[in-house]
Amino acid sequence: MSFATRADAYVARIESVLDHHLPPTEVAPRRLHEAMRYSALGGGKRIRPILVYATGEALGVPLEVLDAPAAAIELMHAFSLIHDDLPAMDNDDLRRGRPTAHRAFDEATAILAADAMQPLAFEILATHPALVGNPAAQVRLVALIADACGSRGMTGGQSMDLAAEGRRLDPAELEHIYRLKTGCLLRASVLAAVCCATEVPDTTREALERFVDALGLAFQVRDDILDIEGTTAETGKTGGSDLAKDKATYPHLFGMPKARQRADELLLQATDALAAFGPGYDGLRWAARYIVLRQRS
Amino acid sequence: MSFATRADAYVARIESVLDHHLPPTEVAPRRLHEAMRYSALGGGKRIRPILVYATGEALGVPLEVLDAPAAAIELMHAFSLIHDDLPAMDNDDLRRGRPTAHRAFDEATAILAADAMQPLAFEILATHPALVGNPAAQVRLVALIADACGSRGMTGGQSMDLAAEGRRLDPAELEHIYRLKTGCLLRASVLAAVCCATEVPDTTREALERFVDALGLAFQVRDDILDIEGTTAETGKTGGSDLAKDKATYPHLFGMPKARQRADELLLQATDALAAFGPGYDGLRWAARYIVLRQRS
Repeated sequence: MSFATRADAYVARIESVLDHHLPPTEVAPRRLHEAMRYSALGGGKRIRPILVYATGEALGVPLEVLDAPAAAIELMHAFSLIHDDLPAMDNDDLRRGRPTAHRAFDEATAILAADAMQPLAFEILATHPALVGNPAAQVRLVALIADACGSRGMTGGQSMDLAAEGRRLDPAELEHIYRLKTGCLLRASVLAAVCCATEVPDTTREALERFVDALGLAFQVRDDILDIEGTTAETGKTGGSDLAKDKATYPHLFGMPKARQRADELLLQATDALAAFGPGYDGLRWAARYIVLRQRS
Repeated sequence: MSFATRADAYVARIESVLDHHLPPTEVAPRRLHEAMRYSALGGGKRIRPILVYATGEALGVPLEVLDAPAAAIELMHAFSLIHDDLPAMDNDDLRRGRPTAHRAFDEATAILAADAMQPLAFEILATHPALVGNPAAQVRLVALIADACGSRGMTGGQSMDLAAEGRRLDPAELEHIYRLKTGCLLRASVLAAVCCATEVPDTTREALERFVDALGLAFQVRDDILDIEGTTAETGKTGGSDLAKDKATYPHLFGMPKARQRADELLLQATDALAAFGPGYDGLRWAARYIVLRQRS
C-alpha cells in the first residue's frame, strides 16, 4: 500500500470517527449541532490525525486506540479555526472554500459551536471504549492535549499572532509564535501516539520531538507561502488575506526566497531526526514531505 | 464554626487555588493572562466550588482532593460568562460590578482568555498532585465535567437561551433550558465530589442528584427575579438587562408571584431530598438556602 493510499485511509477513518462522535443534527440544539458538524466535517487536510496515526503505526499502536486522540486533537484544531476566523480576530469569510462558520450560521452560533468542541474532545478521551481500562494513558492524553491548547500553547499563540499584526519581528520572535500557534498541537499529535504506546525509549521520544518541532515550523512557513502564492481556489481561503492584514508571516517579513529556503531547511531537519529509524518510520517521512510540499491548503 | 464562616473559608480557598493555577501576568502572552486573571479572580459568588466542598465534606472527602474539581468547574463557569457577555451574545457591559472582559480588554482577548480557561480546567484535573495516583477518578471527573459543559449541557443551554429570546415558552421548555444552561454544571459540582469519594451508596447519590436538580432550577429562577428586582449595585450586572432583551425568564414569562412561588417550591424540594441524612449534610442544606435566598448576585 502506498503512503498516499494509507493517508487517504487515515483521512477516511478520522472522518468516520468524527462523524460518530459529533452529536446528530436531529438532536437539540439542532442549529448548534449543525454548525459543529459543518465545521468539523467540512473537509480539511487532517494533518494532525495523519500524524497521530502514522506515529502510532511506527510505534505499533493499534489504530482503534489512536482514534480518540486523533479525534480530540482534530476537534481542538477545528475549534481554533472557527474562533480565529471571527470578525474580532482574522475576520475571514472563507475557509476550506466555503463560508466560515460565522458567515454560514451567525456569530453567536459559531462561537458556541467551537466552545462545545473543546469539552467533546476531552469527553472522547475520557470515554472512548478503546482507552477505557487504561486510565493512566487517558490522563496523560488529557494533560498533553490540554497543555498544547492553552494560554502557553495554541491559544496563547493566536493571541501573540494578533498582537504582532503590523509589527516588525525578528525570525526568533516569529518562530516562537509559530511554535505556539501551530507547533504545539502538531507536537501533541505525535506525542499522543507516544502516550498510547508501551515503553517508548527516551531516544525515540526525543527523536520524534525533534522531528515534529522542525516539521511544525516548516508547515507554518509553507502555509504562509501558500497564502501569498495561492489563489482562493487553491487554498480555500481568501487569497493574500494575511498580506492584506499585515500579518506577521515569514515571507512577508523576510521575503519569499528566504521563506522557501527556511521551509526546505526545516523539512531536512525533520527527516534527519528520523535517520536512525528503519522502514517502520517511512509513513512519518512521507507525511512530513506531504505536509511541507503540498500545493493546496 | 457556622456555615457562613465555613462558606467564607471555601471561597477563600478556591480564590487561592485559582490564583495558584492561573498563569502569572509576568509570563507571555501577558495581556491574555491578565484577562484570564481579571475574569476568574474578579469576585463572584463561587457557588459551584461551595457545592463541591460542601458535598465532599458530607461524604468525608479531604478538601485538598476537592481543589482540582472545584477549580476546574469554576474555570468552566468563568469561561462561559466571558462568552455569554460578548456583543454577539448578551452584549453586557458589566459583570460583578466591573466592565465585562471584552470591555476591559478587547473582544479578541476576551474570546481567547475564555478559550484558554477550558484546557486549563482539564489540565488541572489531569495533573493536580492530590489526584495523581487515582487516574480512574481523574478520568471520571474529566468525563463528568466535559459532558456538563458541552452541546448537550451548558453550551447547548446558552445556544437555546439565545434562540428563545422574544419567544413564548411554556414552563417545561423554559425549565429545560435552565437545566442545561446552569443546572448541568451545578449538578456536576455535586457529582464531582461523589467521583472523589469512596463507595457512595446508590441511594445517597440519587438523593444528591434530586437535591441539586431542584437547587439548580431554584437558583436560576432566583437569578431571574434578582435581575428584575435588583439595581445594578446589588447584582453587579446592568439592572433589568434580561427584560430589556426580552429574554425567556421565569418572572418575565409567568409573572413575579409565580416565579417567587416556584423558587420556594424548588428550595423545599431540594432540602426534602436530603431529609434522610444527618447533621453531616447541614452544610449542603445551608448552601441551598444561601444560594436561593441571597439578595445579591
